[in-house]
Amino acid sequence: MPSNIYSNTDKILIAVDCIIFGFDKGALKILLIKRDFEPELGKWSLMGGFLKEEENLDEAAIRILYDLTGLRTIYMEQLYTFSKVDRDPVARTLSVAYYALIDIAMHDKELIQNHSAQWFSLDKAPDLIFDHNKMVEKAIARLKRRALSKPIGFELLPPKFTMRQLQKLYESILNKKLDKRNFINKINSFGILVRLDEKDTNASKKGAYLYTFDKVKYDEKVLEGFNFKI
Amino acid sequence: MPSNIYSNTDKILIAVDCIIFGFDKGALKILLIKRDFEPELGKWSLMGGFLKEEENLDEAAIRILYDLTGLRTIYMEQLYTFSKVDRDPVARTLSVAYYALIDIAMHDKELIQNHSAQWFSLDKAPDLIFDHNKMVEKAIARLKRRALSKPIGFELLPPKFTMRQLQKLYESILNKKLDKRNFINKINSFGILVRLDEKDTNASKKGAYLYTFDKVKYDEKVLEGFNFKI
Repeated sequence: MPSNIYSNTDKILIAVDCIIFGFDKGALKILLIKRDFEPELGKWSLMGGFLKEEENLDEAAIRILYDLTGLRTIYMEQLYTFSKVDRDPVARTLSVAYYALIDIAMHDKELIQNHSAQWFSLDKAPDLIFDHNKMVEKAIARLKRRALSKPIGFELLPPKFTMRQLQKLYESILNKKLDKRNFINKINSFGILVRLDEKDTNASKKGAYLYTFDKVKYDEKVLEGFNFKI
Repeated sequence: MPSNIYSNTDKILIAVDCIIFGFDKGALKILLIKRDFEPELGKWSLMGGFLKEEENLDEAAIRILYDLTGLRTIYMEQLYTFSKVDRDPVARTLSVAYYALIDIAMHDKELIQNHSAQWFSLDKAPDLIFDHNKMVEKAIARLKRRALSKPIGFELLPPKFTMRQLQKLYESILNKKLDKRNFINKINSFGILVRLDEKDTNASKKGAYLYTFDKVKYDEKVLEGFNFKI
């Protein structure tokens, strides 16, 4: 192998795209932005940009998301690197996709108000540029696998929540109705919930018990995993 | 945002590194190669090379692995993209890591005999160049998660195998001794095994029953997942 192997490499650009899922009022949403440059000007897109020489991918993802939307302190996870040769018509570009699932209400004030980033319900989201639809599909699949193999919700629900809210979260991620009794039995079997001596009376006169996560048990289950399937 | 955004991008190289785990005679091994160019000439490394403009990452991984070792028809999965700014001292280089777990015996004849690729037991593997140790760690963690959440072994064991062989495979991936009775109960609870009317008498006079996978059940469990924890 020649020692000038480094100088013989092709010029390929590296982009980062951010897939931000939000949970709000029982529904799963996705944050999209209207593209303001060619190609595909005016179409909807994930939040994307190019990697700079002095930063790693995690740092690029944080910078790009902040610059385009104002969102900060969001923990994003690397999802997959997309590399189809013609995925970007302008230049050969890889894209490393990052994703996060956040509590919309908690981050709403950070969003730049005069910018074109906008939340869409997942089932009403517009068609996206390039291979961004595929990126979203892959992120949803990852999210589902996660919800089936580990507890989810600590960062997404208020500190006190009803069983109904937790079920809604699971239903929106798994994209199907769950049987109430089976859901309660399954969730209780993991021992991650603490029932409080307090009721939420917003939805019914009788009220629904409020729960909180047992953080120690919750973190244990995050580490060892479980099988949620019901 | 400027429309010349594409031309303002930094020059960053893209490498692909292949992590090949092998299973042979009850032990988990890793394939490494002696680097024959600077820097780090003569040190042990994963099989790596640079992405070409006309190929995607999957294709690059297959080409690089084949060119360096002779291994072919190996299904590799993309693991993670490593991007620490100073990970390669020569030039700013991202590396997309791919991994596979193969049956060594089945692929042994493909290995280029006069090349420097060599199998190492995982616990006796040498220190690797750059961030390759980290890549291997991440791949092992992924492999463990996989073994705990899905059946594993169909591609790694002979068509007929003993319970002991299957347990050995799990033990070598999870890197711990498993209780025999618990292992048998757990595996049987998934319904993925068929016990044959045939015994393997190599290890003992009494013999050990041979098993085969129920491919339909096995594939079902691959899709829906299970929690192996014992």
